Amino acid sequence: MTIEIIKDGNITSVPGFFAGSSHCGLKNSGKKLDICIINTPEGSVCSGVFTVNRFKAAPVILDIKTLKDQDRIKAIAINSGIANACTGSAGMENAKKMQQLTADALGISSREVLVSSTGVIGKQLPMKKIENGIKNCASAMDPDGGDDAARAILTTDLIEKKAAVRIITEDKKEITIGGIAKGSGMIEPNMATMLAFIGTDAQAARDVLDSILKKANEESFNSISVDGCQSTNDSAFLMANGKSGVKIERSSSDYDKLYRGVAAIMKQLAKKIVMDGEGATKFIEIKVDGAPVWKQAKKAAMKIANSNLFKTAIFGQDLNWGRINAALGASGIVFDPDKVNIYMNDKMIVKNGIGLDLKKSEADILLKPKDIIIKVDLNNGKENWTVWTSDLSFDYIKINALYHN
Amino acid sequence: MTIEIIKDGNITSVPGFFAGSSHCGLKNSGKKLDICIINTPEGSVCSGVFTVNRFKAAPVILDIKTLKDQDRIKAIAINSGIANACTGSAGMENAKKMQQLTADALGISSREVLVSSTGVIGKQLPMKKIENGIKNCASAMDPDGGDDAARAILTTDLIEKKAAVRIITEDKKEITIGGIAKGSGMIEPNMATMLAFIGTDAQAARDVLDSILKKANEESFNSISVDGCQSTNDSAFLMANGKSGVKIERSSSDYDKLYRGVAAIMKQLAKKIVMDGEGATKFIEIKVDGAPVWKQAKKAAMKIANSNLFKTAIFGQDLNWGRINAALGASGIVFDPDKVNIYMNDKMIVKNGIGLDLKKSEADILLKPKDIIIKVDLNNGKENWTVWTSDLSFDYIKINALYHN
Repeated sequence: MTIEIIKDGNITSVPGFFAGSSHCGLKNSGKKLDICIINTPEGSVCSGVFTVNRFKAAPVILDIKTLKDQDRIKAIAINSGIANACTGSAGMENAKKMQQLTADALGISSREVLVSSTGVIGKQLPMKKIENGIKNCASAMDPDGGDDAARAILTTDLIEKKAAVRIITEDKKEITIGGIAKGSGMIEPNMATMLAFIGTDAQAARDVLDSILKKANEESFNSISVDGCQSTNDSAFLMANGKSGVKIERSSSDYDKLYRGVAAIMKQLAKKIVMDGEGATKFIEIKVDGAPVWKQAKKAAMKIANSNLFKTAIFGQDLNWGRINAALGASGIVFDPDKVNIYMNDKMIVKNGIGLDLKKSEADILLKPKDIIIKVDLNNGKENWTVWTSDLSFDYIKINALYHN
Repeated sequence: MTIEIIKDGNITSVPGFFAGSSHCGLKNSGKKLDICIINTPEGSVCSGVFTVNRFKAAPVILDIKTLKDQDRIKAIAINSGIANACTGSAGMENAKKMQQLTADALGISSREVLVSSTGVIGKQLPMKKIENGIKNCASAMDPDGGDDAARAILTTDLIEKKAAVRIITEDKKEITIGGIAKGSGMIEPNMATMLAFIGTDAQAARDVLDSILKKANEESFNSISVDGCQSTNDSAFLMANGKSGVKIERSSSDYDKLYRGVAAIMKQLAKKIVMDGEGATKFIEIKVDGAPVWKQAKKAAMKIANSNLFKTAIFGQDLNWGRINAALGASGIVFDPDKVNIYMNDKMIVKNGIGLDLKKSEADILLKPKDIIIKVDLNNGKENWTVWTSDLSFDYIKINALYHN
């Protein structure tokens, strides 16, 4: 199967998707874009996955309800700067108002609108600014608006995250999938502070999209960690507007193609979130192999990814394999320590649970690249899982200790 | 009941306990003490709790075996600088040799000796140095040797941890309890890199000591976290030599007194470990109240204690209550977000799940002290739990990124 990457593609690379962005004054600095609307005027079937944090932000609660009642969605309005989380009943009123304002501006029903917010917790949305922003977004709808939208949803992120692919079905027809995302800190399984908006012109029922989104989410956004912290606002959406005329059913051979296309987009976006992790100087891939079941492999990989000691060692370019062992041993999974082999960038560093005596010059070479690949072989089965994380640097502390909006 | 604190007390404050320390060359810097023996010549009943990390260090594996076969212990030999962890069969041979050398030096059976190591993972013990060290320790046995022993077991710790108390039984008899401990990084529940040695002159059977040690451990060493990382070497021992002639049985009214005395010592040592946390500038107490069961309260408190975002906010003296909410919501416990109240140093900062609008000057005053007390009231029951942690600072990164032995 061919997945063709669309260079610099994003959600509006998908036929039938439009986006409009604006600056309405939510972000402190300059005239940065801080609000946008993604719109597919003929409607789409939409699936969503959300944070499991008990403090769910108002837009998350509202979207869960909206998607429970129906699944035809035409637009998503997104603001950055303020999360509308921990804002009580006033926050919920504002989320509903944002939904209604978007519906009014586009001349559709509020039931066809989802809303997302990201930013500081505990502040109320300034609704006058939001109202102006939504009007401006609605009048700026653009079939090439995806790039601006990718910028409008950023908070402490430094770079926009976007990706698009084209896949060819069994019948030689074309499906496009594209997405944008945000997130840089507070990133952990169960999605943490990240938002992702994926669109496709495939035609698919809600249960098909649900199953694809859930599985792709597990191996992308739920397989990354910057700081082990989980947010109140995480949401990922998959919208299928059917424009291609290609209908995907669970039983069809194209189901797997759509799944792999969506997963490819989501992994791309997830990796970009990690690369943009707060203060990150290294991009770390951790693959745990040789596990009896993938969940054990994932649990072990995430434990290493979340170890502050491991992350500071990588920042310090220190080959402290003992910290990988210690995190692995603390993960709660079952394995034989005497059978564990560990590789860094393909070089074996631990054999049968014991670190090899590498020369300092060899270790220095291993730890110099920006990309560090750790492979752990448990030799206890055939399943594996891969996760991505960043190191823990002085700048992470700086950003998170001295940042307040 | 009165617990009388023995000022500057330690394990040799307990009648019948001796300690000898020495420098044998395991630590890189200077002539620092790096090996010691704790000895109670007439023997003691000993209980131990150990790390649950699957990569258990050789001395841990050996001690678990020794204490399984019997419970009369006369001596514990401890070295710092090298952990003897992830050292394979050679490491196990060295641990056994260290045990035998100690037995020979004291003229006792190796079955009456436990061994502990702490320091760098993956290095073999230099047995010639260990042998000399043990001989020197054995010939330096001192009824006031506890202070030196407390220094000899330190690694990256800055200050020694010691405590002792005296309790009066129902019959007006006196029992003494004293201990020393080490640990500063890699501190988390399930004990992380910490060692603790507690002695008492009470007389008690193994099952009595086991039950006291397990319970006291849960609310002391298993209720602290510096960085959420768990070590390969953690061990805590409770030795009862019976010198006081006071026999404690499970059914006796003095059982609770002994428990509370041991718990007081262990909490003191645990707090000192947190205060000495790597790079710590703040000492943080987190109490979660109003939970249906204590385990839920503890789970929530530990999740907050391990949140990098919360810890960096406290370091930055930033009243970011949203990060407390987010960690609490991510803890996996069941509660109603709208009922949560949070207090910092007795001042309410979150009411019904929503942050109060404090003035910056008020927030600055709250966050200035070195000691920060967070109280979370879930309003969902009557149980509570308290844990202790430190903030996450630039120096934590410095110590852990640039440290290698």
